[in-house]
Amino acid sequence: MHILITGAAGMIGRKLIARLVKDGQLNGQTIDQLTLIDVVTPEKPVGFAGMAETSISDLSSAGAATQAIAKKPDVIFHLAGVVSGEAEIDFEKGYRVNLDGTRALLEAIRVAGYKPKVIFTSSIAVYGAPFSDSIADDFHLTPLTSYGTQKAICELLLADYTRRDFLDGVGIRLPTICVRPGKPNKAASGFFSGIIREPLAGQEALLPVSNTVRHTHASPRAAVGFLIHAASLTRVQLGPRINLAMPGVSCTVGEQVEALRRVAGDKVAGRIRREPDELVQRIVAGWAERIDAKRACDLGFTAEATFDDIIRAHIADELGGKIVA
Amino acid sequence: MHILITGAAGMIGRKLIARLVKDGQLNGQTIDQLTLIDVVTPEKPVGFAGMAETSISDLSSAGAATQAIAKKPDVIFHLAGVVSGEAEIDFEKGYRVNLDGTRALLEAIRVAGYKPKVIFTSSIAVYGAPFSDSIADDFHLTPLTSYGTQKAICELLLADYTRRDFLDGVGIRLPTICVRPGKPNKAASGFFSGIIREPLAGQEALLPVSNTVRHTHASPRAAVGFLIHAASLTRVQLGPRINLAMPGVSCTVGEQVEALRRVAGDKVAGRIRREPDELVQRIVAGWAERIDAKRACDLGFTAEATFDDIIRAHIADELGGKIVA
Repeated sequence: MHILITGAAGMIGRKLIARLVKDGQLNGQTIDQLTLIDVVTPEKPVGFAGMAETSISDLSSAGAATQAIAKKPDVIFHLAGVVSGEAEIDFEKGYRVNLDGTRALLEAIRVAGYKPKVIFTSSIAVYGAPFSDSIADDFHLTPLTSYGTQKAICELLLADYTRRDFLDGVGIRLPTICVRPGKPNKAASGFFSGIIREPLAGQEALLPVSNTVRHTHASPRAAVGFLIHAASLTRVQLGPRINLAMPGVSCTVGEQVEALRRVAGDKVAGRIRREPDELVQRIVAGWAERIDAKRACDLGFTAEATFDDIIRAHIADELGGKIVA
Repeated sequence: MHILITGAAGMIGRKLIARLVKDGQLNGQTIDQLTLIDVVTPEKPVGFAGMAETSISDLSSAGAATQAIAKKPDVIFHLAGVVSGEAEIDFEKGYRVNLDGTRALLEAIRVAGYKPKVIFTSSIAVYGAPFSDSIADDFHLTPLTSYGTQKAICELLLADYTRRDFLDGVGIRLPTICVRPGKPNKAASGFFSGIIREPLAGQEALLPVSNTVRHTHASPRAAVGFLIHAASLTRVQLGPRINLAMPGVSCTVGEQVEALRRVAGDKVAGRIRREPDELVQRIVAGWAERIDAKRACDLGFTAEATFDDIIRAHIADELGGKIVA
C-alpha cells in the first residue's frame, strides 16, 4: 500500500507517520510506500522498512497536486492547511492554501482518473454561533471564520467528488486537539493546550479567555486514531454524508484547570496567568461548545473520556511520564 | 443608483429588469444606470430613462468580473449560472461558471475596495435527502447534485465576504420557479413548469415523475419580488446568517395537475403524457419537498398561497389572460 500525507511536517502529520510506521500496515495491507509532503521538508520516517519520499510541495502551486499523486497513492491523508488565526489575519493566503490547495488535489485525482481514499481533516469551526446546547451531526454550516468557511467548502467539494465517484472521501471534523506538544502555533485555539503544556514544563502560561469558556477537546493520540479509523470505513458504512464530527471531551477552561490541579498539583496549576485577548475571545465565542458525535461514535470512532485522561496522554506521550513540579 | 445584473438575458433576469424599469427606483432611490451582462447579449431595456449598458461577459473569464464592476454598481443582482441538469452532465462547466464565476465576482469587489449590496440567487438544491418532514432554515447543507454543491459553496463565500465587510451579501434559496415561460431549459426541474405551460398553450407535455412527487414552487413574479425585497434588507435585519430559504407553495405533481384542471378544465389537463425519466427522477428525489421558510416570512418575503394562484399568475403575465382550451 502507498500512502500520501500532505501537511506531513505538522504535528498531527508527524504523529500519524510514527503510528503508520509502527503499525506497518493499514486496513490489513502492508505499507510499502510513503509519500510525505509539506511546505517545509518533512522528516524521513525512522525505522520504516518501505520506500519513503519526502518533498517540499505547496498544493496550491501550479502542477504540485498532479506531481503529488503521480504515483497514484492508494490512501491520501490530506492534513495540509493554514490554521484558524492565520486564515483570519491573511485572507488571501487562507483561501489559497485551504481552498485552492485542496481543490487542486481533488482535481488532480479526478483528472488522473483513479479512485484513492481521501481522508480530509476538517474542523468543528464549520459550525458557527448561535448554537443549540449541543451540536448534532446535522447542525447547519454557518462558520464565523474564514478558516471554518474554507473547511466547510472543502467538505462540500469532497462530498461531491465522492458522489461523482472520482474518489472515496471522508471528512473528519476535529475538535480542538489538546494538548498540542511543542511551541504555540497561530491557531486561536492554541491557549487550550498552552495552559496545560507550559505549566507541566515548569513555565508560565497565558490564559486569554474566562473560566466559563466551554470547548470540546481530543488528544493528538485520539486524532491519529480518528484518521486511521476513517481510512477503514467503506462507502456503504458512510452513506452519502461523508463528513463527520469527531467525539471529544467537552469541558470549561475552569474544568481544564481543575483537571491539571488534580493530575499535577497546585504548584503546576498556579503557573497559569490571565491575560484577556479580544481577538481570541471573539473567535472562540463563535465556536461550538458541545459536539454530539453520535454518528462518529456509532461508526466506531473513540476519544478520551475525561480531560484528566487527555493530560495523562500528554504526560505519557510527550514528557516521558515526568512533570516539572 | 447603479444596478448590475448578471445573467440578465435569462428568464428571471429579464423579468427583474422589466420590474426595475417599471418601478424606476429601488429602496427609494432613482435607478439612473443599469449594467446588464450575460453570456449572450441581453436585450436593451425598453422605456428606461437612465443609462443602460448591455454586454456579453462570462464572469469566469480572466478580467471579466473586474470589468463588470469597474463603475462600482451600488447593487448587484448575481443571477448568472448553469442550471442543475447541465451542471450534473458537464462537471467542469458547472464548477467553472457557478463556482469560479461567482468567486471571481466576489474577489473583484474585494480588490476594488468598495462595498456594494450583492443579492445572490441560490437554490433549495443546497439541501439533500434524507430529509425531515419539513426543511427548517437551519437544516444542514448536504446537496446531492454538483449544482447544489456549487450553490452551497457560493453561499458560504458570500457569508464570509459579508462577515469580513467586503460587501453586503444576501443569498436567497429559490424554490422551483413555476411556471417558467418560453422553451424548456436544461434544469431537471423543467417538467414542473412544462406540465402547466404546454397544456395551457394547446400542446402536449411530458411528465417524467410520478404523481406523488412533492415539491415547493413560486412564480417568476414571486421570484422577482424576492430579489427586490432582498435588496431592501439591512445587515442588522439579516444578522450573521445571510442565506435564506424563500417561501413557496408545497404540493404534489398530482395536486399540480388537479389545480390545472380546476383553473383550465379537463381538456387542458388531458394534454399531460406520462414518460418516466430515470435521471430526472433521481435528481428530484434528492430535493427538499417542504420548506419551512419562517425566517424569510418573518423578514417580509411573500409568495403565492396556492398552486392555482401560480397558474393564474402565468395566465395573466404570459398569456394575456388567454388559454388554448
